[in-house]
Amino acid sequence: MTDKEYMALAISLAQKTIGQTSPNPAVGAVVVKDGRIVGLGTHLKAGEPHAEVHALHMAGENAKGSTIYVTLEPCSHFGKTPPCANLIIEKQVKRCVIASVDSNPIVTNNGIARLKEAGIDVEVGLLKEEAEALNPYFNFYQIYKRPFVTLKTATSLDGKIATYSGDSKWITGKEAREDVHKYRHEHDAILVGVGTVLADDPSLTCRVPNGGINPIRIILDTSLRTPKTAKVVTDNEAPTWIIVGSGVLDEKKQEFEKLGVKVIIIKEPTISISELLKTLGENGIQSLFVEGGAKVNGSFLEAKAFQQVITYIAPKLIGGSNAPTSFAGTGFENIKGVPLLKVKSVEKIGDDIKIVSLPKERV
Amino acid sequence: MTDKEYMALAISLAQKTIGQTSPNPAVGAVVVKDGRIVGLGTHLKAGEPHAEVHALHMAGENAKGSTIYVTLEPCSHFGKTPPCANLIIEKQVKRCVIASVDSNPIVTNNGIARLKEAGIDVEVGLLKEEAEALNPYFNFYQIYKRPFVTLKTATSLDGKIATYSGDSKWITGKEAREDVHKYRHEHDAILVGVGTVLADDPSLTCRVPNGGINPIRIILDTSLRTPKTAKVVTDNEAPTWIIVGSGVLDEKKQEFEKLGVKVIIIKEPTISISELLKTLGENGIQSLFVEGGAKVNGSFLEAKAFQQVITYIAPKLIGGSNAPTSFAGTGFENIKGVPLLKVKSVEKIGDDIKIVSLPKERV
Repeated sequence: MTDKEYMALAISLAQKTIGQTSPNPAVGAVVVKDGRIVGLGTHLKAGEPHAEVHALHMAGENAKGSTIYVTLEPCSHFGKTPPCANLIIEKQVKRCVIASVDSNPIVTNNGIARLKEAGIDVEVGLLKEEAEALNPYFNFYQIYKRPFVTLKTATSLDGKIATYSGDSKWITGKEAREDVHKYRHEHDAILVGVGTVLADDPSLTCRVPNGGINPIRIILDTSLRTPKTAKVVTDNEAPTWIIVGSGVLDEKKQEFEKLGVKVIIIKEPTISISELLKTLGENGIQSLFVEGGAKVNGSFLEAKAFQQVITYIAPKLIGGSNAPTSFAGTGFENIKGVPLLKVKSVEKIGDDIKIVSLPKERV
Repeated sequence: MTDKEYMALAISLAQKTIGQTSPNPAVGAVVVKDGRIVGLGTHLKAGEPHAEVHALHMAGENAKGSTIYVTLEPCSHFGKTPPCANLIIEKQVKRCVIASVDSNPIVTNNGIARLKEAGIDVEVGLLKEEAEALNPYFNFYQIYKRPFVTLKTATSLDGKIATYSGDSKWITGKEAREDVHKYRHEHDAILVGVGTVLADDPSLTCRVPNGGINPIRIILDTSLRTPKTAKVVTDNEAPTWIIVGSGVLDEKKQEFEKLGVKVIIIKEPTISISELLKTLGENGIQSLFVEGGAKVNGSFLEAKAFQQVITYIAPKLIGGSNAPTSFAGTGFENIKGVPLLKVKSVEKIGDDIKIVSLPKERV
């Protein structure tokens, strides 16, 4: 097998763990000696061994003189586990093929440098793009220190989220609604406005076959209007954070904290999206799945604060000038000023259509 | 070659003439004798020879004892040209393979019956579906005596046709805008509301490479507000019909007729879509391409009067509660009451997305 084939294997191993390693990235590793695979590994969960450790452990004695293929530059610092670069050196690996460098600018190339100093033959960049695509949320957070934002909308073919009378159940089909839960699994946190909590009392958990990882549930709620009886407060299914404005009294905050909810006060009477994202970044949220409603969507849109847009479109025509659309608020005045996206993928999902788009210019 | 391959050839010949044969259907024919193609034909233009005539003419002496493959049942009546069934009999063709029967219930199977009476070996139904797909507009009109309606919309990813301030140039890209002209070529007529004429003064002609066939331009204009200086009145590029309500005076009608415009008065003070379509059907319009604006689109939607929906979506987010969408009017009250479509195709076109959908239940 070629270097490329071994690296593709390492990438495919990492792919299966996307969503379960946060705040760490998904990483895969393959150890090869004398034309045979002697070790395989992926990072499974933060705090547990890195991919290289699992792979070298499986390789045992065979690690000596081997080639290790790893999707991300081996770490060189003591975190929750000792540096992988040291282990590679210690095990007398001969050659190390790395797909992508660490996206944290403070540590980029440190691991590579250490391996080279130890006389290991290091090659960097094989299937770089594919490896970087494993961890868009992690990579973004490393650079910007705020969460990667995914906006999700689900509309009729004519862009409506409900009829003029407010009927919205259901616009998209079962398959599209299930697909949404994969994104809940992948993201650190899900965000809705308090309006959605008041209207629908959603649980905001991840319901996928064989279980999924529930995101932290974040309610954008300037005046702390979330009812204490809301599912997100009472069900204990996942952590709930309520983000409130500076007008909320400490006493009221404490009432919610007693119920097990984290309340974060933003020092603004009206919460700006930029301050919100800064605060969430400081609280370690690397990825945020925004599920609306229209008012919250509109705020993120007007702040141009999104890195990915997931659009589900059902082949239905609802019509009506007053039937609501996915983004409320003022919107942009001129076509020239609107955020341009590029379509990453478009596919049929059940009877519906799913479009993934990314901003044309990053950030 | 197999029967299927010859029929597929006949279909592919007919395909190239879609849009240029109206009010006749696109039809292809292939004549085969002793394993060789001896004749090919397609119908090119109403009033000119049918596909079988061209193909048998090419075959000459070889027609005797041959097999003819034809995408549509040969006609048995004298129209602008003599019946093709007679010619097939006269030329002593041995076998006739037919894909689809005539969709006009009055003549269905008449041609087949005549061929069989003459002792010709007739087979019906090979690639039937593909052959019927050649002429959806013609087939619909034969049955319902009113035009097949295609609704076209072009929006941002969030369903907007303009910003809140009215800016709409351009939402979709060059490729999508050019694609629209292929539909203008295919349809007998294009329809817009007078609002569009007043706002944009469009020419509504078909601009495709190597020229296209201009549709009849139909303006829905209850009170006859179309300016006499509008391009559709003055440019002589294609026929223009203005459809007006019963309140319009005969005198005003005549003023427009003097300018070469056909004015059709519908006997209703407010024009209903059903009466409009009935009238257009009586005037021989088999297919109608509705290009809006939002008010006209809304009227067709609420009347559930469409057989095909073409949706272009640009990867842009315009936002704003007040930014207009493709369908104005009241819209439907409940999700259960909205017309359901099925997605026939979804594809990228330039930077945009094109979705073709059809009503789930025909009509």
